[in-house]
Parts: sequence; structure tokens; C-alpha cells
Amino acid sequence: MRPNWTLNALAEQLQLPLSAATEVTISGLATLEQAGPGDLCFFANTRYRPQLRQTAAGAVIAPESAVADAPCPVLISANPQLDFVRVAELFDSPEPAQAGVHPSAEVDPTASVDPSAWIGPQVSVGPRSRVEAGAQIGPGCVIGADCVVGPDCQLIARVTLVLRVRLAARVLVHPGAVLGADGFGLVPQAGGWRKVPQLGGVTVGEDCEIGANTTIDRGALGDTVLERDVRLDNQIQIGHNVHIGEHTAMAGCSAVAGSARIGANCLIGGGAGVLGHLQVCDGVTITAMSLVTHSIKSPGEYSSGVPLMDNRSWRRAAVRFKQLDKLLGGKQDKET
Amino acid sequence: MRPNWTLNALAEQLQLPLSAATEVTISGLATLEQAGPGDLCFFANTRYRPQLRQTAAGAVIAPESAVADAPCPVLISANPQLDFVRVAELFDSPEPAQAGVHPSAEVDPTASVDPSAWIGPQVSVGPRSRVEAGAQIGPGCVIGADCVVGPDCQLIARVTLVLRVRLAARVLVHPGAVLGADGFGLVPQAGGWRKVPQLGGVTVGEDCEIGANTTIDRGALGDTVLERDVRLDNQIQIGHNVHIGEHTAMAGCSAVAGSARIGANCLIGGGAGVLGHLQVCDGVTITAMSLVTHSIKSPGEYSSGVPLMDNRSWRRAAVRFKQLDKLLGGKQDKET
Amino acid sequence: MRPNWTLNALAEQLQLPLSAATEVTISGLATLEQAGPGDLCFFANTRYRPQLRQTAAGAVIAPESAVADAPCPVLISANPQLDFVRVAELFDSPEPAQAGVHPSAEVDPTASVDPSAWIGPQVSVGPRSRVEAGAQIGPGCVIGADCVVGPDCQLIARVTLVLRVRLAARVLVHPGAVLGADGFGLVPQAGGWRKVPQLGGVTVGEDCEIGANTTIDRGALGDTVLERDVRLDNQIQIGHNVHIGEHTAMAGCSAVAGSARIGANCLIGGGAGVLGHLQVCDGVTITAMSLVTHSIKSPGEYSSGVPLMDNRSWRRAAVRFKQLDKLLGGKQDKET
Repeated sequence: MRPNWTLNALAEQLQLPLSAATEVTISGLATLEQAGPGDLCFFANTRYRPQLRQTAAGAVIAPESAVADAPCPVLISANPQLDFVRVAELFDSPEPAQAGVHPSAEVDPTASVDPSAWIGPQVSVGPRSRVEAGAQIGPGCVIGADCVVGPDCQLIARVTLVLRVRLAARVLVHPGAVLGADGFGLVPQAGGWRKVPQLGGVTVGEDCEIGANTTIDRGALGDTVLERDVRLDNQIQIGHNVHIGEHTAMAGCSAVAGSARIGANCLIGGGAGVLGHLQVCDGVTITAMSLVTHSIKSPGEYSSGVPLMDNRSWRRAAVRFKQLDKLLGGKQDKET
Repeated sequence: MRPNWTLNALAEQLQLPLSAATEVTISGLATLEQAGPGDLCFFANTRYRPQLRQTAAGAVIAPESAVADAPCPVLISANPQLDFVRVAELFDSPEPAQAGVHPSAEVDPTASVDPSAWIGPQVSVGPRSRVEAGAQIGPGCVIGADCVVGPDCQLIARVTLVLRVRLAARVLVHPGAVLGADGFGLVPQAGGWRKVPQLGGVTVGEDCEIGANTTIDRGALGDTVLERDVRLDNQIQIGHNVHIGEHTAMAGCSAVAGSARIGANCLIGGGAGVLGHLQVCDGVTITAMSLVTHSIKSPGEYSSGVPLMDNRSWRRAAVRFKQLDKLLGGKQDKET
Repeated sequence: MRPNWTLNALAEQLQLPLSAATEVTISGLATLEQAGPGDLCFFANTRYRPQLRQTAAGAVIAPESAVADAPCPVLISANPQLDFVRVAELFDSPEPAQAGVHPSAEVDPTASVDPSAWIGPQVSVGPRSRVEAGAQIGPGCVIGADCVVGPDCQLIARVTLVLRVRLAARVLVHPGAVLGADGFGLVPQAGGWRKVPQLGGVTVGEDCEIGANTTIDRGALGDTVLERDVRLDNQIQIGHNVHIGEHTAMAGCSAVAGSARIGANCLIGGGAGVLGHLQVCDGVTITAMSLVTHSIKSPGEYSSGVPLMDNRSWRRAAVRFKQLDKLLGGKQDKET
């Protein structure tokens, strides 16, 4: 069902020069290694030059400097990765947008749904919530009270917006995500914990993406905030009153504890954590599974953890780690 | 839509003395830094004394010793944090409890639902399950077979109780949580894995709270148990046959592997893990992203991990970690 | 409601010899420590010999060498753990399989459902998808476009298959799992991120098991692949274009980043991570919360991390870790 393009038509569509005249037809996209004669690839990293030389692809998007190494016609590009994405968009075939309210959906009488929006099967929309023009609410989503789903947002399926969640335009939310649940606030009192009411909401800026089974709690006082173009992968946990700056991207299973503030243009690696109430400035990269234990005031790359070793060597190093302070002359304490 | 209170009325409601006569009206709650003249704040930690001195708040809840530093009237409190929570409860406006079974819900004929309980839209209740007085089952929840939802429990939305899950009174479960799925039990046999039937259930005590997308597996033999007033944040994983003592609180993304036993009044930090079959005594604190690799027999605070460093320094330290045993005189092994 | 068996009948059913003539009746299964006179246990690990000697169980499955220590009749087995699982299967009482489409379900007219399959309440099945013979689709599941659910698959409840997800026979998926969501692919462009279309799908082999709230993204080009008999626990994250070999088992909260390749017969511990584009060969064990930072070419056990310590000792060791390179003679860099 995907379209076929002649390479000439693609070149014209993308406004990119071709390295040679050709009659090649492109029916799919692939990596250099897996491509066949009907496939288009891209070459952006010189590390893959051997794969480029050996590729069976029908054509490749690459910089001019790679033409000599390519065994096939080249679409010459100053940014092959981005131009490959532009081709991929031509080969994508998303389901068309829909409009209207599915008869199995439940919409509270005080909620409003734009006629151009779609409310899918088994969806529930709560009191005083608003679904704006072109928004697509897929099967099984639950929208609670006092929420706003902005224009052209997409909630793929089984997304929950609990309470006071406001999505700006074009926010994309994947299945299982939960936005606006109670922040984790407790104070001790006689006989156990007392829950702190969570009076705030969640504000999500334009063009944000929120991954499958990611959770973003609403604020205790004031909102939890994602600025525009924040990109969250799957299974991320964002605590209450966190603030994340624009263009920051976080990889799967990372987490930010309550009231921390992450700057703009940060990259947070998979499984990394940021403790509560910290500040991370703009332009910081955190490597995978690192724990941010203090505020960061200079852009750059930060890490914690120790390297992977075979288990036997690791056991020895780990024992030495416990002895480090004593071995290096510190005052000794009883160990666990 | 939130209520306005005169400060005098709040003082009377909370039974707290005021530092000065005042006509202030309170329309919201805020932090010392963000508050405006209609807001009430609290001051509990002397570290925030500068913020107290500069606050624009209309009033503050604080100990008597802070009155001189406050630029506004003070509600004098021996426990400002707890009294602030009491005010927050007055400013909260939860949706009122409902009763009855929504027409789009599916209730098995062998299940029972108390007339004062609410079964919301798109809910499914399985064979022989029981929903008790005042319980609120929000949109999209699935209750499987042989479950009990105790009096005044709240399942906010899209919660799943799979099989043999018994919730005592006033348990609060957030969206996406899954209780009672199969524990992860496998034995090797010729040709692959053989699954171990999970014959137990899950028992949750009174006043527990279970966060969004948290998972609690049912026991293999006997139950997985949360005692009363256990508080679990989002995306926590509790393995089969785990036992957690009362008042223990666990932060987001932490995990406890099968058959481990956590005591009462423990605090488990975000992303921390406890290996299977271990015992952790009462009163233990585990810091964020630590891994508990042995049983703990004394109350106190425990940690693992290494501190965050700039990536270049960290790479050097990490190399040294691999060399530690050799550098410190150990018998050398080949490294990975 | 569970069956009672005489021990003689169980011995005959399992084809195992009994250590002594007996009239015992078995009404349940338990551990050596918790068993009463109506319970059957197993003994497989000599570490538990004291518990065996003291058990109040009615009978035990154990190797012949344990008969002298058992205070009760023994079902003599060369593989007590596996034979115990066989008994547990006799004591399990799963709900019977169902057939047909529940009236509250929504099935797209272009989808096909085998008459022997079951589509439960509040389920949605999208365009061109196919549900094959005997498959059980529990309450609240969402099946998107172009998916295949193979024969005798079980989707317990609230499972989402987003797009181009193909499950082979007898795949078991627990609640909240999301398969086939967009992989996390972004390229920078002027003004922010541009999303990479995810044109592939997800392929899952026979007899795989996928835990609650686990997420498996679909491929960017080509599929994300689980070979047959892969077993995934809860809250696991599998990135796009990952390939996992047969019989590999992963414990809760572990994660594999995009395009990594995990071999067959691997065991990945809880909370462990594998970075993108790495290769892990067959027969590798990764211990809990380790991070795989380089490809692994030899079978064996691998670890990272440092041991748990009391917090005071840990703080000293952690400081020393930061000083390691300097203390051991390296060229010093400014520290964070």
C-alpha cells in the first residue's frame, strides 16, 4: 500500500540534485545493510563508509563527498538525515483524521467538543473539559475534569488526563500515558501519613510528544510545566511542579522528582534520574542511568555509575570500593 | 471556583492564633516566592528565612519564632506543614462521590455492587467480585474475577485488578495501575520455559495509595501483601509474594523483586531496587537509585552508586574503578 | 473451589513414586515454612534442609536423597521444581475460554475475527486487523490498524497494539502493555525537533509473554522483533528495531535502547539497561541494575554498580571515587 516513486520524482519533490541520470524506482526505505534494489538509504556518518560501498540499495541520500563511494545513484544533500526524514514522511501512511463523537463515548454535558475533533470509541470526557479543533481522541482515552485538549492534538489510545491538564496545539500523547494524577505529597501525622491535596494542574506546550506509559503528575501549588517542543520517550516519570524547558528530550525510563527544574535543549539519557528541587541549566546532557544529585550550572555532559565488567572482576572492584576510604587513609567507620 | 476565606475565619477554623489583627482575605495557596497578596504560604524550614522576609504573601503559617521576620500576618502553628495541609483540604474541590452503575459498564451477574458504590463508564466487573459501600470505580477500570474493592476505595480511572485482589477500606489507586497480574515465575524445561501458575492474590490494607502505572503482581503461593497506610508513587514494580509493612512509602520507579520483605516505616527512594527474597527491617531509608543487594537488619540510611561528575572526569574515575583491585594489590583477572 | 487430590492420585497423575503408603489428601500448595497438613511442598535446594526437617506439610516433592529428612510422605522426583509446577497446573482454575464479540466492542468492518476467538467488553479492533482462532481479547483492549493476533493468544485486559503488531501463536500479554507505539526518533532542524516517521512494526514469536505496563516500540525501518519463547516481566521498555533472541528472559523495569540486539538464552536482571546499537551474544546474564555500555561477545555474567553501604560510609567512598584518578596519579581535571 505504500507509494512508489521514481528517483527523479523524489529528487524534484525534495529539490535535491542527483549524481547521475537514472530510471530507478523507489518502493521503500531501509538501512544501508538491509536495503535491496528498490530501497532508498541515507549516509550521514563516515563510520558507515564500508556499508555504503557494499550497499545493494537502489539509491542513497548522501553528501556530495560520498558520491565516489556509492555504488548507486546519490541524492546529494547537505543534511542527509533530515532529507531522509522528509522522504519517510512521503512513505508514511497514517490513518486519516476523523471528526465527530463515537456513539460509545461518554461526554459530560458541561464539556465541549469542537465539531472538527474526533472522540473515538469507549472514550470518556469529564466535566468542564474542552476538546478543540481537529483534536483526535483515540479509543479508550479518559479525559477528566477541567482539561483542555488543544487544536490538532493526538491522543492515540488509552491516554488518561486526570484533572486540570492543559495541552497546547499539536501535542502527541501515546497509549497508557497518565497526565495530571496526584503528585506524591505526604506529611507525617500521628498514626500515619496525611495526604497533601494537589491543587495545581499540568501545562504542556505546543508540539510536545509524550511516550507510552509515561506519567506526569499535576502540581501541588501551581502547575507542572512542559514548555514547547519537549520530547518524552516511554515510561518516564515527571513529579509534581517540575518545569522542563523547550526542546529538551528525555529517553525511556528517565525520571525527574518533584519541583526540579530542567533547562532548555537538554538531553536526558535512558533511565537517568534527577532528584527533587534541583536546577539543571540549559544545554546539559546526562548519560544513561546517571543520577543527578546536585544542581548543574554549566552546560556540558555529566555522568555517574561505573563501567560494566565481568562479574568476577566486578566483585573484586566492588569490595575495593567499600574499602576505598580506609585504603586511602580516611578515618574508618563500621561498614554495613 | 475555589472558596475565599478571611484570615480570621481560617484562624478560627484551624484553631490557630493570629500574630496581629487583620482584614486580609485568602483566595489561594502558594509558595513563599510565588505568592501574591491574596495567597497564604507556610514557613517550616529555617533555610527559607530569606524567602519569608521577601514574600508578598497575604499571610503565612509559621512558628511563633518567625513572626518577627514575616512581612505579613502569621497564623502561629507548632506544625506549619501539617496545618498548611489542613488549609489545602479546605481549598480542594474534588468531584462529589457518585452512586449507581453507568449504563455502559459491564457487571458480571455473579458480581455484587453495593447500591452506594459507583461503577463509571466503560467499566467491567468480573465473576464473583464485590464492590463495597461508597467505592468509586472511575472510567475504563477493569475488575477481574474474585476481587474485593473495600468501602470508600477510589479507583480513579483505567485501573486493572486482574485476579484475587482484595482492597481494604479507603484504598486510592491511580490510573494505569495493574494489581494482581501473573507473577514472573518460570522454570526451564526441555525446549524452553514453563510458566509457574500463580495461585495467590494481592492483599492491600486500609488507607494505602497506589500510584499511576504502578504494578503489583499476585503471589505464586499465598498473597502479595501491603499492610495498612503503605504509600506507593508512580511506576513502581512490586513482585509476587512481596510483603510491605505499614506506613512505608516508596518513591517513583522503585521496585521490589519477588518474595522480599520490607519492614514498616521505611522510605524507599526513587528508582531504588530491592533484590528478591531479601529482608529489610523497620525504619530503613534507601536513597534514590540504590540497589539493596543484601538483607538489612539495622534501621538507618543506606546508599549505593557513585556521584555525578562531568563526563571527562567520570571517564577517568571509571577507568580507575576497573583497575582498583590491581592497583590495590589484588590478584589480577582478565577484564572485559 | 480448588480441587482436592489424594496423594496416591497425584502420584499416579504425575507418574512419580511415593516414599511410603499413605492416606493423605492434598487441598493446596505452600512453601515448606507455611504449609499445613493439607498442603504439598517441594524441596529442591539443599539450603532449605532445615525447613524440610521442620515442615508441617502433608507431603513434599523431593529427590530420593531427601526422604530420610522429610517428616512426611515424599513424591520422589528427579526435578522437584518442574514437577511442582505440574501439580500447580492441576490446582489452577483459570476462567474458561470464551468465543464471540461482546456487544460493547467496536470491530472495524475491514477487520476479521475468527468465530472461535473472543472479543471482550469495551474492546476496539481497527482497520485490516485479524484476530485468529481461539484468541482471547480481554476487557478494554485496543487493537489498532494492520495487526495480527495469532491463534490462542491471550490479551488479558487493557492491552494496546498500536500499529503493525504481529503476534504469533499463544502469546500472553498482561494489562497495560503497549506494543507498536512510535519509536523515539527525532532529528534536529531549525526551530526544534522533527519527528522521524516510524514505518516498521513489531513481530512477536510463539509462546512469548509480555508483562504488565511493558512497552515495545515499533521499528523505524523494519520491525522490532522478539523471537519465540521470550519472556518479559513488567514495566520493561524495548526500543525500536531491537531484536531479542529465543528463550531470553528479562526481569522487571529493565530496558533495551533502539537497534540493540540481544542473543538467545540471555537473562537480563531487574532494572538493567542496554544502550542502543549494541550486540549482546547468546547466553549472557546481566545482574540487576547494571548498564551494558559496550557489546558483549562472550557468554557469562556481567555487572556494574557499587555495593550498598550505610550512608555515612558510602559518602566517604563516593568522595574517594571522585578523587580516584588524582590519588592514583592521573592528570587532574577540574571536577564538577
